[in-house]
Amino acid sequence: MAKDLEVQEGRAARDYQDPPPAPLFDMEELGKWSLYRAVIAEFVATLLFLYVSILTVIGYKAQTDANAGGADCGGVGILGIAWAFGGMIFVLVYCIAGISGGHINPAVTFGLFLARKVSLVRTVLYIVAQCLGAICGCGLVKAFQSSYYTRYGGGANQLAEGYTKGTGLGAEIIGTFVLVYTVFSATDPKRSARDSHIPVLAPLPIGFAVFMVHLATIPITGTGINPARSFGAAVIYNQEKAWDDQWIFWVGPMLGAAAAALYHQFVLRAAGIKSLGSFRSSA
Amino acid sequence: MAKDLEVQEGRAARDYQDPPPAPLFDMEELGKWSLYRAVIAEFVATLLFLYVSILTVIGYKAQTDANAGGADCGGVGILGIAWAFGGMIFVLVYCIAGISGGHINPAVTFGLFLARKVSLVRTVLYIVAQCLGAICGCGLVKAFQSSYYTRYGGGANQLAEGYTKGTGLGAEIIGTFVLVYTVFSATDPKRSARDSHIPVLAPLPIGFAVFMVHLATIPITGTGINPARSFGAAVIYNQEKAWDDQWIFWVGPMLGAAAAALYHQFVLRAAGIKSLGSFRSSA
Amino acid sequence: MAKDLEVQEGRAARDYQDPPPAPLFDMEELGKWSLYRAVIAEFVATLLFLYVSILTVIGYKAQTDANAGGADCGGVGILGIAWAFGGMIFVLVYCIAGISGGHINPAVTFGLFLARKVSLVRTVLYIVAQCLGAICGCGLVKAFQSSYYTRYGGGANQLAEGYTKGTGLGAEIIGTFVLVYTVFSATDPKRSARDSHIPVLAPLPIGFAVFMVHLATIPITGTGINPARSFGAAVIYNQEKAWDDQWIFWVGPMLGAAAAALYHQFVLRAAGIKSLGSFRSSA
Amino acid sequence: MAKDLEVQEGRAARDYQDPPPAPLFDMEELGKWSLYRAVIAEFVATLLFLYVSILTVIGYKAQTDANAGGADCGGVGILGIAWAFGGMIFVLVYCIAGISGGHINPAVTFGLFLARKVSLVRTVLYIVAQCLGAICGCGLVKAFQSSYYTRYGGGANQLAEGYTKGTGLGAEIIGTFVLVYTVFSATDPKRSARDSHIPVLAPLPIGFAVFMVHLATIPITGTGINPARSFGAAVIYNQEKAWDDQWIFWVGPMLGAAAAALYHQFVLRAAGIKSLGSFRSSA
Repeated sequence: MAKDLEVQEGRAARDYQDPPPAPLFDMEELGKWSLYRAVIAEFVATLLFLYVSILTVIGYKAQTDANAGGADCGGVGILGIAWAFGGMIFVLVYCIAGISGGHINPAVTFGLFLARKVSLVRTVLYIVAQCLGAICGCGLVKAFQSSYYTRYGGGANQLAEGYTKGTGLGAEIIGTFVLVYTVFSATDPKRSARDSHIPVLAPLPIGFAVFMVHLATIPITGTGINPARSFGAAVIYNQEKAWDDQWIFWVGPMLGAAAAALYHQFVLRAAGIKSLGSFRSSA
Repeated sequence: MAKDLEVQEGRAARDYQDPPPAPLFDMEELGKWSLYRAVIAEFVATLLFLYVSILTVIGYKAQTDANAGGADCGGVGILGIAWAFGGMIFVLVYCIAGISGGHINPAVTFGLFLARKVSLVRTVLYIVAQCLGAICGCGLVKAFQSSYYTRYGGGANQLAEGYTKGTGLGAEIIGTFVLVYTVFSATDPKRSARDSHIPVLAPLPIGFAVFMVHLATIPITGTGINPARSFGAAVIYNQEKAWDDQWIFWVGPMLGAAAAALYHQFVLRAAGIKSLGSFRSSA
Repeated sequence: MAKDLEVQEGRAARDYQDPPPAPLFDMEELGKWSLYRAVIAEFVATLLFLYVSILTVIGYKAQTDANAGGADCGGVGILGIAWAFGGMIFVLVYCIAGISGGHINPAVTFGLFLARKVSLVRTVLYIVAQCLGAICGCGLVKAFQSSYYTRYGGGANQLAEGYTKGTGLGAEIIGTFVLVYTVFSATDPKRSARDSHIPVLAPLPIGFAVFMVHLATIPITGTGINPARSFGAAVIYNQEKAWDDQWIFWVGPMLGAAAAALYHQFVLRAAGIKSLGSFRSSA
Repeated sequence: MAKDLEVQEGRAARDYQDPPPAPLFDMEELGKWSLYRAVIAEFVATLLFLYVSILTVIGYKAQTDANAGGADCGGVGILGIAWAFGGMIFVLVYCIAGISGGHINPAVTFGLFLARKVSLVRTVLYIVAQCLGAICGCGLVKAFQSSYYTRYGGGANQLAEGYTKGTGLGAEIIGTFVLVYTVFSATDPKRSARDSHIPVLAPLPIGFAVFMVHLATIPITGTGINPARSFGAAVIYNQEKAWDDQWIFWVGPMLGAAAAALYHQFVLRAAGIKSLGSFRSSA
């Protein structure tokens, strides 16, 4: 598929243009309503993400608890939990892509910041909004049924028995790499230029990337790949083990996001950078 | 992703135009065949929605009933039930989006009415058609196998043990908020203007929103988020407990839909309203 | 969503044109390679459809057979079986939509024939090719492991215990109605005219419709809604019970397809017929 | 659906043009960065594919191991494993379609080579990169938890008991045929010419084809249909049985890919070849 596109590139001038890097501090941005609207949208989306996904986790554990009369096969299964995380990301990215870019995840925001797609101000505000949203989402789940919430682990991420801290960290790094790499690929200006529907179609593979990583790493760490998700659950659950492992769910995703940003910008887009000097389309 | 779009907005005139609010009473509409066709389409779609989803619920319960020789893991699982509800909404919204707008849910109709997207006349006719369709759909399931239907709860929504009425109401409010918010995002004129495929692509995230909410709240209320679905099942099942909790499945979804309409119109589209006076694109 | 479209219609001339009805006998068609290519494509697609879906059924039953050391929860589950049927239809309709229209089902071909979308000659050739393909697909599964094939029911459709013949017939009628109605909605010339991607996007809801109906009616009839699928399995399995119920899986789907064709052409498109005399777009 | 298109073809000149066959040896290609970038992208994608899918397999087996206290229904199920393979192909093809064409599978590369879509040089480099990527991906899984990896079979493909070698080979041939046929259909220049979004939409049916084949043949061979996947797992797992059956997972997929290439080029596109001499669109 790609070959035709590449041939075209060789022949004619590039049909896309990389947007200029976002400034680190953009004071003008602070005066715009669109920034605050985006921050509100990130807050609400992260709240809904945690609410639905953690409620699914607690409901599954309650329905399969043999001590409480649950059936072994009751509930939506681990597969249903993976769908809840991935599916909500698909729905929410679809909803707010046009408002805030649809990050819902500090690692995604951090990766896009490293690639100079968002300003530092926006990065900080987004991450704060995402963490607050995650806390509120988990808080809602606890408010609904606090005894179940505490009994069934509060949806907090922690290392499963039988795995080392290094494995947990590695799982978070690679898992976040898969997610952030998909985000970069899906929102590449090279693709958008050729196909205006990319922003509409991108949420599906992004949601699937989250779904996939959950299938693979729920048995290891419960799957973080989103520091806000891990932090919000830890704050509301507030047990020692969740806090002890908390660093894994910040360091891992941030490293994974950085690796994805580097891979996309320096390896995959290197040709783009090289040809930057020669010719440029004037749309 | 959103940032580029916002920048464009700042520079040039808006490339979309909000349609004028729908009138409360539109007598002319009453004389058009397209209104009645839309009402028929809502009736048929809600009938098919309830038929497939409730039949899935009853079939699952029959196949996993240990007293009737069912296997613990037989049937499609709770995950399959969640797919049945979400998947049918995807298919049916896809089918009738061009005929009636594809509501299939009084809460969606009510939310769009609050945002002045549909007239009062249409709102009332749709809700009546949806409730009648739901009753007929559940009636078909009962007609197929009435002993199973009654034995396995008739697919009626009711509060599970261990949850308070407040929790049930909260679950319905937030669940419907997720759905109606997705509907608003997916059908925003701002998006449609930029991408004519929105009406074609929107059904998937809408169906997924329904799927997601079912994953999370089946253990709590069986998941209503659709007063016609709850009402139709209650009418055909007709047991006291289902009627006692019925108000939850009307008040919750209507409040959730209203909250989503307010959030979308006043928070997310506020900038749109502000800039309304300054310039306007003349397409 | 629909309202805007309708308003447009009222104001301006129609932006689409119904193709003329297909002739009953089109002798010229018989001389074209494209007809035979389409018939081959239907044969191969139905073969692959039955091969993958029946192999999934047999594999699931083998893996969950307690007598053969199977685990209760092994295999892909009934949910996996429903995915196999629905997912294959999605993939295959996507692949051959541009070659043959992607029917893969005599009921779909019959419904489109009633709506005069395909000629009688093509209808007959397609149905023969679909039945032969289904027989070959099931034959392959039996050839792979004939003892499992026979022991686990050969994937043949038959009425489950506890359901009457009337219920089975009703389930097939409504199930096929859902499928064929989705096919009509997805391939409506009114939609295609406004959006050239319809042929590309339509396979997903069509596949989902098949998936949904399987979730609901596997416990009742094993889900036919495709006479070729039921016939092919009956020919290769060749047991009395499968042949006794065979008529249900021809009469039901054909009635359901006819109902969907009538509903779409006379109810939903009635307005189109009415306005046919007044004005016509000249593309 | 197809009929309208065919009629158009008959009337007017063809609106698409087949690209010229790729040369066997393209020395100029060797000097281009885009080739090496594509090879790197194939390596990374195959690595991530094996990492996520094999980790899902091992995690599932660990969570359902009764000897280790696992629950019968724990884990994501065989259905989750099928999703992991199919979903990752969807995500990764989406990500790298614009870079390398998104093969991630020597059988796909071989099929496209036979159809003269890629040069011999590119074919060889891709297959080497895919095999190395698969080895690294499996190596990562083993590095994470080597005792689980070895105990639970290392995700290696091997023939299940009760099936003959001929059956295993047949399952691989037909399974790969389904996949490669979908790839050909989805990337047909005839389709792309009419719809520029094909490259964006194609990954979903391709991923679903992989998902479907896994549903059907996991009980038989564990499902290869990708020699790099089978080879990488065999190298890292390195047990006799996996090596004994290895030839099945090379011969089968290659034969299946060749059959799909022949079927697509000589049967489905034969009309295209015939009309080649008569007229040609000059876009």
